[in-house]
Amino acid sequence: MVYITRKEHFNAAHKLENPEWSKEKNEEVFGKCANPNWHGHNYTVLVTVKGEPDPGTGFIVNLKHLSELIRKKITDKMDHKNLNLDVDFMLGVKPSTENVAIKIWEQLHEDISNLGCQLHCIKLLETENNSAEYYG
Amino acid sequence: MVYITRKEHFNAAHKLENPEWSKEKNEEVFGKCANPNWHGHNYTVLVTVKGEPDPGTGFIVNLKHLSELIRKKITDKMDHKNLNLDVDFMLGVKPSTENVAIKIWEQLHEDISNLGCQLHCIKLLETENNSAEYYG
Amino acid sequence: MVYITRKEHFNAAHKLENPEWSKEKNEEVFGKCANPNWHGHNYTVLVTVKGEPDPGTGFIVNLKHLSELIRKKITDKMDHKNLNLDVDFMLGVKPSTENVAIKIWEQLHEDISNLGCQLHCIKLLETENNSAEYYG
Amino acid sequence: MVYITRKEHFNAAHKLENPEWSKEKNEEVFGKCANPNWHGHNYTVLVTVKGEPDPGTGFIVNLKHLSELIRKKITDKMDHKNLNLDVDFMLGVKPSTENVAIKIWEQLHEDISNLGCQLHCIKLLETENNSAEYYG
Amino acid sequence: MVYITRKEHFNAAHKLENPEWSKEKNEEVFGKCANPNWHGHNYTVLVTVKGEPDPGTGFIVNLKHLSELIRKKITDKMDHKNLNLDVDFMLGVKPSTENVAIKIWEQLHEDISNLGCQLHCIKLLETENNSAEYYG
Amino acid sequence: MVYITRKEHFNAAHKLENPEWSKEKNEEVFGKCANPNWHGHNYTVLVTVKGEPDPGTGFIVNLKHLSELIRKKITDKMDHKNLNLDVDFMLGVKPSTENVAIKIWEQLHEDISNLGCQLHCIKLLETENNSAEYYG
Repeated sequence: MVYITRKEHFNAAHKLENPEWSKEKNEEVFGKCANPNWHGHNYTVLVTVKGEPDPGTGFIVNLKHLSELIRKKITDKMDHKNLNLDVDFMLGVKPSTENVAIKIWEQLHEDISNLGCQLHCIKLLETENNSAEYYG
Repeated sequence: MVYITRKEHFNAAHKLENPEWSKEKNEEVFGKCANPNWHGHNYTVLVTVKGEPDPGTGFIVNLKHLSELIRKKITDKMDHKNLNLDVDFMLGVKPSTENVAIKIWEQLHEDISNLGCQLHCIKLLETENNSAEYYG
Repeated sequence: MVYITRKEHFNAAHKLENPEWSKEKNEEVFGKCANPNWHGHNYTVLVTVKGEPDPGTGFIVNLKHLSELIRKKITDKMDHKNLNLDVDFMLGVKPSTENVAIKIWEQLHEDISNLGCQLHCIKLLETENNSAEYYG
Repeated sequence: MVYITRKEHFNAAHKLENPEWSKEKNEEVFGKCANPNWHGHNYTVLVTVKGEPDPGTGFIVNLKHLSELIRKKITDKMDHKNLNLDVDFMLGVKPSTENVAIKIWEQLHEDISNLGCQLHCIKLLETENNSAEYYG
Repeated sequence: MVYITRKEHFNAAHKLENPEWSKEKNEEVFGKCANPNWHGHNYTVLVTVKGEPDPGTGFIVNLKHLSELIRKKITDKMDHKNLNLDVDFMLGVKPSTENVAIKIWEQLHEDISNLGCQLHCIKLLETENNSAEYYG
Repeated sequence: MVYITRKEHFNAAHKLENPEWSKEKNEEVFGKCANPNWHGHNYTVLVTVKGEPDPGTGFIVNLKHLSELIRKKITDKMDHKNLNLDVDFMLGVKPSTENVAIKIWEQLHEDISNLGCQLHCIKLLETENNSAEYYG
């Protein structure tokens, strides 16, 4: 079993708020992440898949195919978008780093199986200092 | 003459649009940067000052003072904010990388003179691949 | 289960020596790391915790709380200090990358449980090229 | 159990092709990686070993010894070389990132056992965006 | 005057040799860079242009146009190629970091003038540790 | 004229203090950098030289020679050392980032002229966020 990781990027706006809470409680819990006029990040997503290398290619997956899949299902939908308002699979989801990683996993894992390997991990960096990992 | 650079960060939302243009022309010129619901970035700002080292300290400026100044005048106002809506010195300014660099210069250069050195350059990275430099 | 990682930094002096050995044996084993007048590093510590996202916040832990805990228990005690002389929980410990990672784990794991998640890994980078990981 | 990682580098040429396939099929599958006149990369290899810290040193392995071993068995043979033509242990192997990681593992794991620890993982970065991991 | 920098990448093979010299002299001068079977690098190129921001856009140049130009004139010709054999504007040129930077400048500076700004600097990184800058 | 930059590293201990000042004034001015038991950094030094490429090599300087010079005059003397106590050319100098950059310039500029090019800039990074540049 070998693991291959492809790194991609998207730049997006978001805010963190619980609509069932008061403005004061949102600010207390989420701090400056609750700014009503949004803020944003350069997100980095690392998609790790696992499998056995194919004897004909040496690949567990053709990275051209994996990269195209990530573009179609993830970065075309999330890049230069608002994660709270613009992304179909994020609607109604609080866009914490944790939840964005989980949602990206859900968008990719079946299609990656169809490429002949298995999704192992989604790692999402929101900043240089904060990141989340989800293994399904 | 020696040059000292301090790196700081802020995460912000913005969009690029010319209010005098049609939606179509804005999209043609600014592409996905014109998304009406905003997008965002992890901005990195490098503030370079120049001067002669003080014999008593070896410093051209005490970086604690420079860092506090950048926090007060720049990152406290821009971090987790919307550059089009929330930042007093950006109101009415198109928040291109170029213009944000110029506006940061204008906010800092007098106060840096009061620290006993001179502002030399503002370098602003919007992404890993795109940056602007302004020398006044 | 989701994993969240927070990256922090501290700059410290240290040296490697076994007080039961001769100067010659210390130099043979530890090389330039045995320099009697110390040397130092910019250390980077990555604290990874695991848990289930809270439905109200989307967080497995509020990173503001985790970051404050790391500051109080680790970086306030280690930053701009001598790891052999100044840090209470390092006294009598050989400050190899391995041992520093273990000691940081011991300082944090109970308090992290009190934040409602579990410490998963301490990764400590001593240089760009050398790092240690400890999982308890 | 603690894990220690040493990062090393080598710069090499290679191409991807299956000699049993037509030129057209090679181009279809491998794209620009099949360029007959070669291309190349700055490879980064991360060697992770695991073990218990020695009480006398605080080390699971002396990194000077591990680094010398990687130099002798890997980077002296691969740096500024052609992976298809010049490297004894790569002859007849398709030099995909996956296969290069596997072959580096095979070259190192016995010698690392002789250093008193165990090889845990070879991570190989071919570019900033593409990497492979192999755990034996 | 503001400066804007766009970073792009290409991965290529090359070797350093002077065809008028003996094999021995080539090895003496160029060391392992003279390996007859080539080696390669992940090159990073930073293209810095200067100009006045346009009041309608805030841009000194639309980075979409600059990026397309760099792709057409530089990276489409150099990526996954052999710098000694495959690149029209490098034929007969010793592909040192210095010379590659000069040749990239020559390919770009007229077309960049046609975009309404001026080429200021080509910075080429051959490795993390070695880079060249050319200002025309 | 082309500029070439070589990056090297050294890890060292230091402290900032003015021996003519009280302990209180030293702490007020230098803060935690005045810790009596030292602290340390992973320093990065970027040596930029300028010249005309030699037609026979394409080089303004053979980087093997430049790198050996930096090792002999700088990193062999500073790596795993105490900048206040162990380095001949730093004795009596306050080891601020500014002053260390100036002293490295003084150590190198004549020998670099003997390599057939000119020293242009010493850039010294003390941390990821703080750096100094000196141009003679």
